[in-house]
Amino acid sequence: MPTVRLLTDDELSTEARAVFDDIRATRRTDYVNDFWRALANDPVTLKRTWESIRQVMAPGALDPLVKEMLYVAVSIAHGCEYCVASHTASARAKGMTAEQHMELVAVVGMAAETNRLVTALQVPVDEVFRKPG
Amino acid sequence: MPTVRLLTDDELSTEARAVFDDIRATRRTDYVNDFWRALANDPVTLKRTWESIRQVMAPGALDPLVKEMLYVAVSIAHGCEYCVASHTASARAKGMTAEQHMELVAVVGMAAETNRLVTALQVPVDEVFRKPG
Amino acid sequence: MPTVRLLTDDELSTEARAVFDDIRATRRTDYVNDFWRALANDPVTLKRTWESIRQVMAPGALDPLVKEMLYVAVSIAHGCEYCVASHTASARAKGMTAEQHMELVAVVGMAAETNRLVTALQVPVDEVFRKPG
Amino acid sequence: MPTVRLLTDDELSTEARAVFDDIRATRRTDYVNDFWRALANDPVTLKRTWESIRQVMAPGALDPLVKEMLYVAVSIAHGCEYCVASHTASARAKGMTAEQHMELVAVVGMAAETNRLVTALQVPVDEVFRKPG
Amino acid sequence: MPTVRLLTDDELSTEARAVFDDIRATRRTDYVNDFWRALANDPVTLKRTWESIRQVMAPGALDPLVKEMLYVAVSIAHGCEYCVASHTASARAKGMTAEQHMELVAVVGMAAETNRLVTALQVPVDEVFRKPG
Amino acid sequence: MPTVRLLTDDELSTEARAVFDDIRATRRTDYVNDFWRALANDPVTLKRTWESIRQVMAPGALDPLVKEMLYVAVSIAHGCEYCVASHTASARAKGMTAEQHMELVAVVGMAAETNRLVTALQVPVDEVFRKPG
Repeated sequence: MPTVRLLTDDELSTEARAVFDDIRATRRTDYVNDFWRALANDPVTLKRTWESIRQVMAPGALDPLVKEMLYVAVSIAHGCEYCVASHTASARAKGMTAEQHMELVAVVGMAAETNRLVTALQVPVDEVFRKPG
Repeated sequence: MPTVRLLTDDELSTEARAVFDDIRATRRTDYVNDFWRALANDPVTLKRTWESIRQVMAPGALDPLVKEMLYVAVSIAHGCEYCVASHTASARAKGMTAEQHMELVAVVGMAAETNRLVTALQVPVDEVFRKPG
Repeated sequence: MPTVRLLTDDELSTEARAVFDDIRATRRTDYVNDFWRALANDPVTLKRTWESIRQVMAPGALDPLVKEMLYVAVSIAHGCEYCVASHTASARAKGMTAEQHMELVAVVGMAAETNRLVTALQVPVDEVFRKPG
Repeated sequence: MPTVRLLTDDELSTEARAVFDDIRATRRTDYVNDFWRALANDPVTLKRTWESIRQVMAPGALDPLVKEMLYVAVSIAHGCEYCVASHTASARAKGMTAEQHMELVAVVGMAAETNRLVTALQVPVDEVFRKPG
Repeated sequence: MPTVRLLTDDELSTEARAVFDDIRATRRTDYVNDFWRALANDPVTLKRTWESIRQVMAPGALDPLVKEMLYVAVSIAHGCEYCVASHTASARAKGMTAEQHMELVAVVGMAAETNRLVTALQVPVDEVFRKPG
Repeated sequence: MPTVRLLTDDELSTEARAVFDDIRATRRTDYVNDFWRALANDPVTLKRTWESIRQVMAPGALDPLVKEMLYVAVSIAHGCEYCVASHTASARAKGMTAEQHMELVAVVGMAAETNRLVTALQVPVDEVFRKPG
C-alpha cells in the first residue's frame, strides 16, 4: 500500500505531465509505471529524478545492459522488492538472458558473503590496493 | 585491526597451503592478499570460499569484467571498505577504465536514491513486472 | 504473516496488560497497533521497548514531529515496510504536511545517493570535519 | 585511501571549475571538501550531484536544519563514516545544539531497534496505517 | 512474485534432481522449499549453495541450533522476509523455544540500536579490543 | 574521530557517574570502554542504554555466550567496526573459542549469501513456514 496516492494521468500537474510525456517519448510506450505516479506528487523531485536517471543510464563507457544489471545488483543489496522486480524486467527488455540473470544473481550472493566475511575478520586494506586510479 | 591473525606462509596448515598454491597459480602472482590470510585460520572455509569465488567469477554468460563491476557495486551497497578497494583494483586489472569506473559509481548512487524513494513511497509492484523470466 | 501470535487483549499477561493500559492512556486512543501485540509475547521486552520509546520520543530539544520524521527516515534506510507505514502515519497525525513528507523523502533519497558515492570513492574525512562537538 | 584522485584546483576541467565556483559562492567559503574533489573526476556527475543537493537541501516546507538532521540520520543508518562526520558538522554550522544532536542520535538508535524487532516478528501493516496521504 | 520460475520436480535437470534427492535424504522429508525450486534454474549455483549450507550448518564447535539462530539474526539485520520466516521455522524444528526466540529477537534489536549509536558517535575502537584472537 | 567528546571520569555528571559505577561493579573491572564515554554526553540515554543491555544480555533462556555471538553476527551484518571488535572481544572473554569464532563467521557469510539470493529471486514464503510459533 503506497504512502502517497498514485496519480492518474488526469491528476497530473502541468509540470508532472511534461515529465510523463518525456518518459513516454523516451521509452516509446504509453505505459508509465507506478514509481513515477507516486513521485508525481512532487513534480520537482519527479523531474529531477527522471532527468538524472536518463543521464546516468544513457549509453556511455558502459553499455545500457551492464548499467541495468548494476542497478539490479544494488537493488538486491538494498532489499528493495519493487526495484528488483522492475529493473530485472528492464534488464530483460534490454537483452539479459536467463543465463546472464542467474550469473548476476550468483555474483551478488558471493559478494554478499565475502563482504560479511571481511567485516567479521576486520581485514585491513592491503597496501597494494591503495592506489587511486 | 583484524579480529584474527593474518597467517604468514609459514603458519599455514597443509590444507590452507594447497589453497594458497591454487590462488597463486590461478592468478599468476605470488602475492596473496590479506583476506585469504585471515580466512586461513579456518582451512575448510578458506577452501570453500576460494572454490566458490573461482566458480562464480569465471567467464560465462557474463564476462569477467562485468562480474567484477557487479562485485564492486554490491560491496559499495554493503559498505565494505576492504571489498570496495580490492575489487575496484581487480576491475582495473581486468581493464576497467577511469570513465567506466565513474559511470559504475554514478549508477550505484542513482540506484541507492531510487531504492530509498520507492521504499519511502511503498510503491506496489506493477502487474507488468510480475512475470518470472 | 507474523512469526509469533498477535495477542488479543484477552490473552495478555498482567504485566503486558499494564503496558497496554499505559499505551492507551498516553496516546488517548483505545487502538493498540499490532507491533505491540507481537511484542506482548515477551512482557519484559514489551515494557522496556515502550518505556524507551516514550522517553526518546518525548518533547525535548527537538520537537516530536522532527523526531517522528527522523524515525521515518531511518525506517526507510533500513527497508522496514511496517515501520515506514506506521511512522509516516504518526508523523501525519503530528502535523506533517504532504509537502513536508515529499521533502523528507527527497532528502532521504539524496542522502542515500551521496552515501554510496562516498563509499564508492572511499573519500577520507576532511580534517575540518574532525572536531567533536 | 580514496579509489580516485582528489583533484586540486589546478587539475579541474572547465566544467568542474564552474561547479566549484558555485559551491564556493553558495557556501560563502573558499573551502571545498574532498567529496567534491573526488567527484570532480566526472564533471557531469559532479554538476548533477551538486545541483540536486542544492535543490533538495534548500529551505522549503522543512527548514534546512531539519533537512540536515535527516541527512545525518540516513548516513548513520547506511554506515557512512564520512557522511556522518561531514553532515554532523554541517548541522552544527546550521545551529544544531549538543542536546539536539544527542536526541537525534537517540531517535536513530531507537528506530534501528524497533525496525529490527518488527522485521524479526514479521508484523503485517495494520489496516489503520494503510491510507495514502 | 518470483523473478524466475519455481521449478516443479518434472522440470528439473538431471544435475538439479540429484541435489533435490540429497536435500530430501538429508532432511528426511519429501518437501523441498521454494528457495531451492528458484535456484534450480541454475543447477551449478543450486549445487554449490546446497553443499556450502550443508557444510556450514553441520554440527561442529557450535551446535546446529545456535547456528540456526545466528542465521535468523543475520536475516533480520538484512531485512529478508523469506529468510526470517524459513530459518525461524527451522530453528523451532531444531528445538528453539518461544522464550529463546523472544530473547534472540531482543538481542538483535539491542544490537541494532547500539550499532547505530556507535556509528552516530564515531567511537574509535579501544586499544584493549585490538587483539587478534 | 568521534563526533562528540569522550568524557573522562572527571567530566561525568552525577547521573553518568552512577552509571559508570554500575558498569564497573557489574563487569568487575575499572575499565570503561569509549562507547560509554561517548554516550555519557547524554546521561539519560547512557542510563537507558546500559540498563537495557544489562537486561537483554543477562542469562535467560539463552546463555550469555550465545547472546554475545548473536550480537557479533548482527554487528557484522550492520557493518559496525567498533561493535564487531568489542563484541568479538566480549565473546572471547565469555569463552568463545577460535574454532567457534570461525564457525560463527562462516554462518554469517552463508546467511548473507542466501539472503541476497532470495531477494534477487523474490521467492514468496512457502505456506509451510507461515505458522506463528
